[in-house]
Amino acid sequence: MSSDEELDEYPDGTVRLRNPNIELMDQDILYHLALGSESHDLISMFGDIKFVCMGGTPKRMEQFAYYIMEQIGHKLPAGTTLLDISQYSYRYCMYKVGPVLSISHGMGIPSVGILLHEVIKLMYHARVRDPIFFRIGTCGGIGLEGGTVVISEDAVDGMLQPFLELPVLGKLIRRPAKLDKKLCRELRALAQPDDPYETVTGRTMCTYDFYEGQGRLDGAFCDFNENDKMEYLNKIHKSGVVNIEMESLSFAALTHHAGVKSAVICVTLMDRLKGDQVLAPKEVLDEWQQRPCTLVSRYIKRYLSMKGRLSLDGHCGSMCVKSPRRFKLVQQESENYD
Amino acid sequence: MSSDEELDEYPDGTVRLRNPNIELMDQDILYHLALGSESHDLISMFGDIKFVCMGGTPKRMEQFAYYIMEQIGHKLPAGTTLLDISQYSYRYCMYKVGPVLSISHGMGIPSVGILLHEVIKLMYHARVRDPIFFRIGTCGGIGLEGGTVVISEDAVDGMLQPFLELPVLGKLIRRPAKLDKKLCRELRALAQPDDPYETVTGRTMCTYDFYEGQGRLDGAFCDFNENDKMEYLNKIHKSGVVNIEMESLSFAALTHHAGVKSAVICVTLMDRLKGDQVLAPKEVLDEWQQRPCTLVSRYIKRYLSMKGRLSLDGHCGSMCVKSPRRFKLVQQESENYD
Repeated sequence: MSSDEELDEYPDGTVRLRNPNIELMDQDILYHLALGSESHDLISMFGDIKFVCMGGTPKRMEQFAYYIMEQIGHKLPAGTTLLDISQYSYRYCMYKVGPVLSISHGMGIPSVGILLHEVIKLMYHARVRDPIFFRIGTCGGIGLEGGTVVISEDAVDGMLQPFLELPVLGKLIRRPAKLDKKLCRELRALAQPDDPYETVTGRTMCTYDFYEGQGRLDGAFCDFNENDKMEYLNKIHKSGVVNIEMESLSFAALTHHAGVKSAVICVTLMDRLKGDQVLAPKEVLDEWQQRPCTLVSRYIKRYLSMKGRLSLDGHCGSMCVKSPRRFKLVQQESENYD
Repeated sequence: MSSDEELDEYPDGTVRLRNPNIELMDQDILYHLALGSESHDLISMFGDIKFVCMGGTPKRMEQFAYYIMEQIGHKLPAGTTLLDISQYSYRYCMYKVGPVLSISHGMGIPSVGILLHEVIKLMYHARVRDPIFFRIGTCGGIGLEGGTVVISEDAVDGMLQPFLELPVLGKLIRRPAKLDKKLCRELRALAQPDDPYETVTGRTMCTYDFYEGQGRLDGAFCDFNENDKMEYLNKIHKSGVVNIEMESLSFAALTHHAGVKSAVICVTLMDRLKGDQVLAPKEVLDEWQQRPCTLVSRYIKRYLSMKGRLSLDGHCGSMCVKSPRRFKLVQQESENYD
């Protein structure tokens, strides 16, 4: 890791804010998370967080929460279940599974940007040390067939610029959209030879629009034709772009600026060099979307097992199951009682 | 209305797409709405739509659907309730109440932009004539106290530019962020002298970020101080900006480009010239957020009553209530039965 990347941390690894105002405020309300620094004991609630996993929809991130719970053998106390911590924000969902947060970020740079500001502040208030942020998503591939897992090396905007440009008080500022190179390599190394799909690294283009902004011919407006589109896609492919999505620029720029290690792992839904439509059936798409989750899970499990904190002796979920067969039978019998 | 604004409609008022490809496609899938031109009979489902109302969260737009149902006296068949038409998209919610669609657009320009592309195409496929689009939202006021209703005259970006700038195939294109001036005036005229709040018109600034992008001091990053902030807010105030939010630029630009009449009506949550924090209690905020809904409801009711399509002789909702008092009693008694 370069010194630049560690610039923003305290020596003990806790997240340092690049904002002197926060320490001086009576309270800091994280509006879009429905949490506050004086209303909630954020150290007790979140002090043990190590991994922050984000993805587009609440449903996908709820599923990821239960998946990672099973994978790391995290047990909930009897009679409890996961709760959406941010349910009263009506914006994002947030689930906590031991050291893992699973949060939905909505669609696009502004939506993920608001969330990152508040989650970075949350890490600061909770005194979390060296957190690692993952974005798990879907994308269009450029020269990659559907179902390929792409780990982003860096992010560029629709003009191939490697930074997030943002008006602040009427002046355009630029934040480099850098991702952690070591983390990218480590994730790549967790791809297994018998995975029935490719896992690659490369440059990710991040756009502000899904239709015209990604060269699609099927939006409400289109002033270009198939030839123009293919010329453009081939051009960006030659410049190293392997996939296109809508959040990586902000995700990379804001985590980098905060000195937080991060990675973007997306699965391609189609090869844009061959077409714009998603043609795979739902079952196939569901399996594809699981692939980035699997890679992130391998990373988290490896980390926890090195720290001796993986508890795979047990099982998944919130009930203490002594015999899975009898457990199932009791459930089935109970269902038939009036 | 200027001829420019009608440029994109067919003579019968149906929405014309500025995309010759759509007519040539086998099917058009509206991915983020979970609808398709060949899978769904979009004319039967949506042909009677006149008003498309959009707002940030699914919860608020579900509430708006039930509110407008009561206001226009729309009745559902016995034994039915409203259904989220786009529930399987896991992205946006969509409710239909007679001639009104109530849809959530998420946060930020990309999120509302994807939705607008697909809703404009939906209007086209459903052969809807002269639809009117409203965005109902919240905002920060500039020189306006909390609870003020602002109808946007036009929208500018964070650099005070009156257009949406968007990279398309590597070239920056600009779309004027114009709103319908007549609709703005008509809405303003529906403010009533005894409304216990102000209703104003003015210029709206639309940003890509909630914290630094709106000059807030309480994000994860902040490189400016209170004085810099106030200088900037006063400067934009002098240029006519009365409120700041995160969707109007795309909303204005895309509806204008499609030749669809539209308006943005937001309530201010605070006066940014006095502070950044939302200080009003929840009950007050809930009442404030109702105010833009009330104004839009007045417009819709006036339109429907002129067309003789308002049915206020009845009641609200999906049940046929003969006596509200007895109805309530029966409900209460039933609740106590085991």
